[in-house]
Amino acid sequence: MDVALVCVGDELLAGDTVNTNAAWLGERLAERGVNVERVTVVPDRVADIARTVNEYRAAYDAVVTTGGLGPTHDDLTMEGVAAAVGRTLEPSEAVLERLASEGGYAREDLAAGTADIPAGARPLHNVEGVAPGCVVENVYVLPGVPAEMKAMFEAVAGEFEGEERHVDFLVVDEPESALVDRFAELQERFDVIVGSYPGDDVRVKLQATDETELEAATEWLRANVEVA
Amino acid sequence: MDVALVCVGDELLAGDTVNTNAAWLGERLAERGVNVERVTVVPDRVADIARTVNEYRAAYDAVVTTGGLGPTHDDLTMEGVAAAVGRTLEPSEAVLERLASEGGYAREDLAAGTADIPAGARPLHNVEGVAPGCVVENVYVLPGVPAEMKAMFEAVAGEFEGEERHVDFLVVDEPESALVDRFAELQERFDVIVGSYPGDDVRVKLQATDETELEAATEWLRANVEVA
Repeated sequence: MDVALVCVGDELLAGDTVNTNAAWLGERLAERGVNVERVTVVPDRVADIARTVNEYRAAYDAVVTTGGLGPTHDDLTMEGVAAAVGRTLEPSEAVLERLASEGGYAREDLAAGTADIPAGARPLHNVEGVAPGCVVENVYVLPGVPAEMKAMFEAVAGEFEGEERHVDFLVVDEPESALVDRFAELQERFDVIVGSYPGDDVRVKLQATDETELEAATEWLRANVEVA
Repeated sequence: MDVALVCVGDELLAGDTVNTNAAWLGERLAERGVNVERVTVVPDRVADIARTVNEYRAAYDAVVTTGGLGPTHDDLTMEGVAAAVGRTLEPSEAVLERLASEGGYAREDLAAGTADIPAGARPLHNVEGVAPGCVVENVYVLPGVPAEMKAMFEAVAGEFEGEERHVDFLVVDEPESALVDRFAELQERFDVIVGSYPGDDVRVKLQATDETELEAATEWLRANVEVA
């Protein structure tokens, strides 16, 4: 299963906020064996949201959006997603009922548009806040506030499922350039994906679908490099 | 000036690494009045890098890439960028000379491809590491290791220049939904861009090209909301 994340928000583009949502979702999806193929941050503009969501929902199995939900003028994700799937926005009865019963919000007290989702979409309740998310076709619309986003993702996590992968990390105390030949040999000997991330040391990530294969590869590498 | 950032790396997609490079670059570019229109993370695959760089260099004034530089099998950014601009990769004499004179690296000791950049590109020296960056047409290729990326960006920062903007932040202790009308009035009265970022409180960002206008708008908002 291949997915793309579309993170909406001028504050992410201007660096006012670090995109920890994308890292958290990437990790949770990887745990479920799902490939994240793209993470794209777009501004708070309907046309940009719609165009990006549309391109990715055609190219990948699912799209997850974060951010841009709520009542203010810069909350435009629902409008962008509705445009992407060619639907109108409509208040969700299920959301209005839940906001009344759980949140104590009378309809007339809610800011205009609070319960709007694309027509026919499946609403996702916001157990940590007010603004609802939704699922429409293969697009999952989640909030931007991390606690709200995480709780809402957990409610749909079971709908994301790929091939199980096993992962090991090894920190190596050698320059990355010295490791080129051993990485080549490692990949020749074993059916593993090798990632090499330099910093003060080199962090090596090994991934395999077969656990025994991963263990053998990690053991071989450990015996053939200077482990930090 | 509108730019796009293309961040290369499986580790960013899988959430092993939080994309702090994008936030840092976004902030530095915003300070210079430059709009970041997209941040896209792509996997360590030549075709994906090439396609994304190509799309963005046509759509925006400049593209800045981070990550995927170095000698290992998963360092594919130079190859992707070369493909995007239709050039071959060639060892840079300037880079080889500098690695010898400053780094003490003899040519024969360097891993194959270490000094390769697209033919005719302007090399950018890596004062904090080994792998060079480059500028080719309107594409700036920077490393992924934050200290290396930052030092290399500073060497070209003067090439990024937009309209000066003034920015103020205000933290408001009211629910976001209650602020809708005042945000509308604020935008009617003053020539400012208003961003609203909910969390425990609501963080409001005001931007204007005119400093006096910004001060007046901030003063008006401060007088009309519950400041936290």
